[in-house]
Amino acid sequence: MRTLARTPAADGYHMPAEFEPHDGCWMLWPERPDNWREGARPAQRAFAAVAAAIAQFEPVSIGVSGPRFTEARALLDARIRLLEMSHDDSWMRDVGPTFVVNGRGGVRGVDWHFNAWGGLNGGLYFPWDQDELVARKVLEVEGRERYRAPLVLEGGAIHVDGQGTALVTEETLLNPNRNPQLTRAQVEQHLRAYLGVTQVIWLGRGVYNDETDGHIDNLACFVRPGEVCLAWTDRARDPQRAISQDAWERLHDARDARGRRLKVTRLPMPGPLTMSASEAAGLALREGTKPRPAGDRLAASYVNFYIANGGIVMPLLDARTDPAAARVLKRLFPGRRVVGVPAREILLGGGNIHCITQQVPRGTRRRSPSVR
Amino acid sequence: MRTLARTPAADGYHMPAEFEPHDGCWMLWPERPDNWREGARPAQRAFAAVAAAIAQFEPVSIGVSGPRFTEARALLDARIRLLEMSHDDSWMRDVGPTFVVNGRGGVRGVDWHFNAWGGLNGGLYFPWDQDELVARKVLEVEGRERYRAPLVLEGGAIHVDGQGTALVTEETLLNPNRNPQLTRAQVEQHLRAYLGVTQVIWLGRGVYNDETDGHIDNLACFVRPGEVCLAWTDRARDPQRAISQDAWERLHDARDARGRRLKVTRLPMPGPLTMSASEAAGLALREGTKPRPAGDRLAASYVNFYIANGGIVMPLLDARTDPAAARVLKRLFPGRRVVGVPAREILLGGGNIHCITQQVPRGTRRRSPSVR
Repeated sequence: MRTLARTPAADGYHMPAEFEPHDGCWMLWPERPDNWREGARPAQRAFAAVAAAIAQFEPVSIGVSGPRFTEARALLDARIRLLEMSHDDSWMRDVGPTFVVNGRGGVRGVDWHFNAWGGLNGGLYFPWDQDELVARKVLEVEGRERYRAPLVLEGGAIHVDGQGTALVTEETLLNPNRNPQLTRAQVEQHLRAYLGVTQVIWLGRGVYNDETDGHIDNLACFVRPGEVCLAWTDRARDPQRAISQDAWERLHDARDARGRRLKVTRLPMPGPLTMSASEAAGLALREGTKPRPAGDRLAASYVNFYIANGGIVMPLLDARTDPAAARVLKRLFPGRRVVGVPAREILLGGGNIHCITQQVPRGTRRRSPSVR
Repeated sequence: MRTLARTPAADGYHMPAEFEPHDGCWMLWPERPDNWREGARPAQRAFAAVAAAIAQFEPVSIGVSGPRFTEARALLDARIRLLEMSHDDSWMRDVGPTFVVNGRGGVRGVDWHFNAWGGLNGGLYFPWDQDELVARKVLEVEGRERYRAPLVLEGGAIHVDGQGTALVTEETLLNPNRNPQLTRAQVEQHLRAYLGVTQVIWLGRGVYNDETDGHIDNLACFVRPGEVCLAWTDRARDPQRAISQDAWERLHDARDARGRRLKVTRLPMPGPLTMSASEAAGLALREGTKPRPAGDRLAASYVNFYIANGGIVMPLLDARTDPAAARVLKRLFPGRRVVGVPAREILLGGGNIHCITQQVPRGTRRRSPSVR
């Protein structure tokens, strides 16, 4: 695999929107018992259900550590491709490559620096050296060339419309535990260079108590160019209320790269949901890993869905609110089939379906055998 | 990845000859310090040179254990695809899948049982559980369906002409440390079912002191249908002489699946070569691994080359005999470029270039994205 010296923008590449066609989807297998209760078995079943749901729409590849290979294989649908890939945890959105395209079938990958959402200053675990290698390993398997971006960033911290606009939060991208040496202008400059965008829309904080430091992918996402869906609550005394209100106002005032105002749809949030005592008791304690006490408010949001070819795979989190959320998503994506997957076990680990997936945009075939 | 219930022959599949077109080649990274001297660094350089030589002709993928990933990447040509894959040692020919085709672009893989060349009765190391998983992991990456063959066999123990004939040795296939419960007729029946052949040509013993128990791929191979190349020595008192003479006579008497007599070319062997005291001193001793003492006769043979698309990658083993061997190979393969790679370090580990490679025959694209 070749690592390229320039930037995607300089080479005519940009990140396509998630709602554009995919060649497939990557995931990682949840394993660590200090983040996934009961030795990760309930999470593994949930991840397997997500993978099976996505595999109805597009090919799914999952990375698993060597020792867990045969166990994972036994839980997974036969259509799913399982590959050995070490990792520190299972958030492919954040540790995987961000794919960029050139509009002529070319696909390449951006490999960001990763520091476990904050490094030694608020990060969630130590070490994270295997996570740091995941993006390049995915690119090796895919046979795609790599850009190494010179800043700490996670895939869940960015959304794009595929037409020149990025959507991010200040809480993540300007957090001193990511790139304290960079100004806002310098961060924007890197987003332009590595995502091929010309306009960056900044929201403020992410979902309340989101341990990623407010990833955009739990708060808001593009539904199509010019249209955004936003996690919303009407509960006046919920600390989430002011966050969603501020985001709504910023989105209302924003213009995208083509000068459009954005249409914003409010997607009601579940809960509030908290971690139960029995759930917390299922977690192993490990030095260096942020503990998850019982009673912790969970950063539950229906915005954390995955857009597949022809489908939406959404988290089911609360029987009282799931049907309404599904109705909104069906309305937002009339051309796609909305599939719900029970996802509380994923939420307990700190994220949801979008966080554990990474799409590969459609491209021309990678490995051209030189047969003579 | 799906495991199929029937057999390749029943499904219209057969193993194509190595000289037919490839989609690529698989290898594994040498790591274990009890088999590769000086912490495997000299062998790693040799494997990297083999991979670079093959990559001139076709795509190369290499499996490496997680802890050695970045070291291997640093030694390898950028064209080579590196994938994490645990293994007990680095003999992809023997632990990888044997690919079969249906002549209409379909490619599948046969996953044989593996017992480290003899299990607890003369095998070379213990355990071999990671080797046993390599074939299915390769098939996962390639997106190819799998047959699980019900017998112990290694890829180096079989050669085929792609037209219905298999070439094997009794020393390997009838060894009591492989499948003691099977008769010769039953072994043949399995070869018919899993390789799609109708005729099996049995040679007797393999190369002298070959610790694989006489793999065919160190002794003889098909050059094209109806033509075989045989490791040969004129040294009358060399124990190899009687082995080669017997093989020559059996090949002379044989008919292939189409009723043809075989043309046999003698490929002179190097040496005899032995392991030096300093080479033996570079090996770590580990319980359960067969020791390699100084003075051991090495199973050196030029027949252990790899046929790539448009190329032959041959081992260089002895400056006194390399040029003559290269001349024979150039004559045997007029349409291919013969590339020599210094291979003594591979030989010291117990095999050579053919043993560390496994071709993927040409097929139609595996993973068809269902984009709507």
